[in-house]
Amino acid sequence: MIDRLSLLQPNPSAVAPAAEKPATDAVARYALGLGDDALVLAQRLGEWISNAPELEEDVALGNIGLDLLGHARGFLTYAGSAWGKTEDDLAYFRDEAEFRSRWLFELPNGQAGPDFGFTVLRQLVASLYFGALYRRLAASADPTLAAIAAKAVKEVAYHAEHATLWTLRLGRGTDESHARMTRALGDIWPFVGELFEPDPTAAGLDGIAVGPESLHDEVLAGVTAVLEDAGLAVPDVPFARGGGREGRHSEQFGRLLGEMQLLARAHPGATW
Amino acid sequence: MIDRLSLLQPNPSAVAPAAEKPATDAVARYALGLGDDALVLAQRLGEWISNAPELEEDVALGNIGLDLLGHARGFLTYAGSAWGKTEDDLAYFRDEAEFRSRWLFELPNGQAGPDFGFTVLRQLVASLYFGALYRRLAASADPTLAAIAAKAVKEVAYHAEHATLWTLRLGRGTDESHARMTRALGDIWPFVGELFEPDPTAAGLDGIAVGPESLHDEVLAGVTAVLEDAGLAVPDVPFARGGGREGRHSEQFGRLLGEMQLLARAHPGATW
Repeated sequence: MIDRLSLLQPNPSAVAPAAEKPATDAVARYALGLGDDALVLAQRLGEWISNAPELEEDVALGNIGLDLLGHARGFLTYAGSAWGKTEDDLAYFRDEAEFRSRWLFELPNGQAGPDFGFTVLRQLVASLYFGALYRRLAASADPTLAAIAAKAVKEVAYHAEHATLWTLRLGRGTDESHARMTRALGDIWPFVGELFEPDPTAAGLDGIAVGPESLHDEVLAGVTAVLEDAGLAVPDVPFARGGGREGRHSEQFGRLLGEMQLLARAHPGATW
Repeated sequence: MIDRLSLLQPNPSAVAPAAEKPATDAVARYALGLGDDALVLAQRLGEWISNAPELEEDVALGNIGLDLLGHARGFLTYAGSAWGKTEDDLAYFRDEAEFRSRWLFELPNGQAGPDFGFTVLRQLVASLYFGALYRRLAASADPTLAAIAAKAVKEVAYHAEHATLWTLRLGRGTDESHARMTRALGDIWPFVGELFEPDPTAAGLDGIAVGPESLHDEVLAGVTAVLEDAGLAVPDVPFARGGGREGRHSEQFGRLLGEMQLLARAHPGATW
C-alpha cells in the first residue's frame, strides 16, 4: 500500500520539466509574476464551471482554466525552488501585496455580474498576449523557463482560436450581442495597457526574460485584427495604470484571494 | 470565415456516440436521472477550482468534474432527443422539481463550509457507484446508453483510484485528519442509501436500464473495504429518505441551481 500512497507525493518534475537546478533569485522573481498571472486567471475561469451559457462552454472554459493552472504550477514550482518553497506555499500563503498578477487577469468575470462576452474578450487578449510571450520565452537561455513556455505555447494557441471564434460569433451576432460585446470591450480595454508596462523583474535578465514592452505591437495588432473582423471598434479610452507587478491590486482581488486560500489556510500542512 | 464559425455549432454526436436514433420517452426519462446526477456533482466539483488545499488537487478535481460534465452531456443530449430539446434546454431551463439528481450529489462540499475530506469521501462513494452502474449499463440493449457508459467506465475507474488514495492518506494520516474524515463520513453516510432505492424510470426497461437496487452489495462492499483499509469505521446511522428521482431536493439545491442557471436564463438563446 505504501507504493500506492507514494503516488500522492508531490512531483514537481511533472509540471516543471527540465528543472534540473534551482532558479536564481532574480529568475524566481520573474517567474513568480508569470505564475501569478496564470494562476489568477485560472481562478476566474474556474468560476464558470457549470455556469457558462452552454454546457459545451463549461467544458471548454474549464479546460482552458486547467491549462493555465498547469502553467502557473510550472512557474511557481520553479520560482519556489530558489527559496525552498513549494508551489502551494506560494499560491496559498502569500498576502495580497506579495502577488504580482496584472489587473487584467484578476478582474471579475464582468463588471455587473458574470458576463460571457467580457470573459471571451479578456481571453482573447490574454491568449494572444500569452502566445507572444511564451513564443519568445521558449528561446530563453534558462532551460526551465524555456521548457514551460514551449509546452504552454501550444495550449494558448488553442485558447486564442477559441476566443477568436466566440468574438466573431458574438460580435457579428444579433444587435443585442454586438451591443454587449461593445460594452464589455470598453470595460476591459483600460486594463490592456498594463500588460506592456516594464516588468521590473525582467530588467537585467537579458536573454532569459522577455520584456513585456516588446510584445505591445504584435499583441495589439492581433487583437485589433480579430476585433475588426468581428465588427467591433477598438475603444478610444486611455489605459489605466495597474501596478500588479509592484504588488498593487484592484479592490476585487482580496476577495478572489480569500476564496482561493480559504481551505489551505484553515488547515495548513499537506495532510491536515 | 463561415467555415470557422460553423465549428461553434453544437455537435451532439461528439458527446453521445452512436445516437443514431432518438431516445424513446421511457429511455429518455431514465437517461435524465443519470445525466442530472453527473451534472450536479460536476457543479459541486467545479466549486473547488483553485480552492483545493493543493494546486495538484485543483487540477485533479477540475478534471474529474469535467469528465462528469462529459457524462452528463451524453445523457442529457440523448434524453433531449426524445423531446426535441438540447442538453442546454435540459440543464438550464428546468426548475428544481424537474431535476432528478440524488441528494448525495447535490450536498454542499462540506456541512460547515468547504471540506476536502467530505469531498474525497463523497467522491469515493460516487465513483464506485458510477463504476458499478456504468459497467452494467455498457451491456444495455440500448446502443446509445451502452456507448456513453462504456466511455465513462474508464474515467470513473480513475476517479475511484484517486478518491481511494486520498481516503487512505487522510484516514491513516494524523489524529486530526482521521477525526475530520470520521466526521465527514458521518455527514455523508445518511445519503448513501438513496443511491440504491428503486428508480421509477428504470422499471419496465429490462435489459436497457440498470435497477439501482442491484448495485447495493457491490458498491457497499467496495466502499467498506476502502474505509477499513483507511482505518475508518462505517457509521452506524440510518439512511435518509432522499427522493431526488421523484423531484424532491435538499434545501441547498435551489442555490446550486440558481448559480448554474443564472447566465443562461439571463440571456436565453445561443448567441444572445
